[in-house]
Amino acid sequence: MEKAVGIDLGGTFIKAGLTSENGTLLKNKSFPTLAEKNSRDIVLGQMEKAINFALEGTGKDVKGIGIGTPGVVDDRGYVFDSPNLPGWENLPLKKIFREKFSLPVTVENDVNTIAWGEFLYGAGRGSNTMICITLGTGVGGGIVHNGKLLRGRKYSAVEIGHMTIDHRGPRCKCGNYGCIERFVGKEYIIERAVRAIKEDAKETLIYSLAERNFDNITPKLIKEAYRQGDSVAGEILIDVGLCLGALFTSLVNLLNPEIIVIGGGISQEADIIFETIEKTIRQRAMKKLAQNVKVVPAGLGNETGIISAGALVFQK
Amino acid sequence: MEKAVGIDLGGTFIKAGLTSENGTLLKNKSFPTLAEKNSRDIVLGQMEKAINFALEGTGKDVKGIGIGTPGVVDDRGYVFDSPNLPGWENLPLKKIFREKFSLPVTVENDVNTIAWGEFLYGAGRGSNTMICITLGTGVGGGIVHNGKLLRGRKYSAVEIGHMTIDHRGPRCKCGNYGCIERFVGKEYIIERAVRAIKEDAKETLIYSLAERNFDNITPKLIKEAYRQGDSVAGEILIDVGLCLGALFTSLVNLLNPEIIVIGGGISQEADIIFETIEKTIRQRAMKKLAQNVKVVPAGLGNETGIISAGALVFQK
Repeated sequence: MEKAVGIDLGGTFIKAGLTSENGTLLKNKSFPTLAEKNSRDIVLGQMEKAINFALEGTGKDVKGIGIGTPGVVDDRGYVFDSPNLPGWENLPLKKIFREKFSLPVTVENDVNTIAWGEFLYGAGRGSNTMICITLGTGVGGGIVHNGKLLRGRKYSAVEIGHMTIDHRGPRCKCGNYGCIERFVGKEYIIERAVRAIKEDAKETLIYSLAERNFDNITPKLIKEAYRQGDSVAGEILIDVGLCLGALFTSLVNLLNPEIIVIGGGISQEADIIFETIEKTIRQRAMKKLAQNVKVVPAGLGNETGIISAGALVFQK
Repeated sequence: MEKAVGIDLGGTFIKAGLTSENGTLLKNKSFPTLAEKNSRDIVLGQMEKAINFALEGTGKDVKGIGIGTPGVVDDRGYVFDSPNLPGWENLPLKKIFREKFSLPVTVENDVNTIAWGEFLYGAGRGSNTMICITLGTGVGGGIVHNGKLLRGRKYSAVEIGHMTIDHRGPRCKCGNYGCIERFVGKEYIIERAVRAIKEDAKETLIYSLAERNFDNITPKLIKEAYRQGDSVAGEILIDVGLCLGALFTSLVNLLNPEIIVIGGGISQEADIIFETIEKTIRQRAMKKLAQNVKVVPAGLGNETGIISAGALVFQK
């Protein structure tokens, strides 16, 4: 069975691994990114170490190297716009490592990478057209359309987190208004809880669970309050589902996917969010396009970044 | 040069033509659809007449028949959900005419068809990734992505007119809320003018040009009022541009197109709408994805339906 090197590049750690064609993680290790040294060459050096670790002891059965990186990736494998990595701008990442290791290299935006991994090995397995979104501080997304990773014309694109659901809504960091990220990104979910506590002076378990300290409020804590029956927490989680449901309605009307995959912290053990999304899509999207669409949690777990990066090598 | 039969099926007329591979319309004629007879077979009979007209006198150089139809078209060429055509539901249109004429038949949703025609012969010629929208009573759209017509997984989809720009906005006929069509569809543009006249009791040329009769208000009349310097008309047209700009910002962030093509009555001679759309995209979309994107009027003119239907035959 063929193998691949998977590199999941983050602002703090470079996660490296060797994966097999069926998505098994054969070995893995984390390396510090050393972004704080403010040197592009140091980060590239760390990546080289990581790849060497993955390649150690392998032979001709390694088909290539897959790299998931933050930022925008163009069709030549150049990287742009990675705010947390020094000098990660106009960087020919693909070329650099192809020359260094004499192996085929695939470079892809990190969230598109996850989408491809979920399609090949995870919750989207066996489907044909899939939308994948990851919820966290930012909201990222990727789409597989007719068995292929959907990319922009020249750039990786598919910035689902920056599609608007309210064009007169609040400004997003990206410059657009009412982006889905501006409603369901981590800090905005927390902000909503803080606002509910302040404005409505409501009795909410969120406040007591947070020991009356706003800094302690997390999406996880809001979910805990909901589990204990708190109605304010319920409203927040339902609204997250409504916002996501509105976004997915647009994407269902656009692409008639068969499956929507959701990953990231806030979505874990949050049936209420999934139920609300499904209900919203059923109510709002065109019947023919929405029929049979499933909304499911991501399936690859903690090492999704490495496994998905390895999966890039097995693109059709 | 190879030729194609193009059939543009509408609720009132079936427009038929013979087109050449380079998009020239060699002959054309309109046939009444006879939808009012409430018989699917009568409409199919009219289509057969129309195809026979187009084929008359041709030889082996006819490569196939392209049909643009209202409704949803699945990947087998079955048609669904055409409210203005009797029995246009679960209809194997492709099979019917392939058997009748022993020629390859391509059936596509009418707006996807226009998008493909604009890509091959019109304003999108020479591009790689293009978004096309037609403004009228309804708002329809189509996308060409990397040189291929984008379709849903199973159905034609790409219902751009029913993507939301305001998920808490007014209800659309389709069941969704705040669809772009609900803001820039013909009747809603007129509604906005009527509201401006009623509520604000503003002096507006729209009212006098309409001879103080709301029924006389049309998008064309609003544009005329704008040309004569009317500020209420200007506000309406700018808001149409803002709404469309917000929608296209989402699509630019998603697909990084190089060109956006806009057709339909309201967009004709309406520079203010195009300028507002371009400005909105530049302000809101991600810089890298929006750079060089052009917003231009459709290029195929009155017979776009026939020419585009013929173009379907020349899909790669």
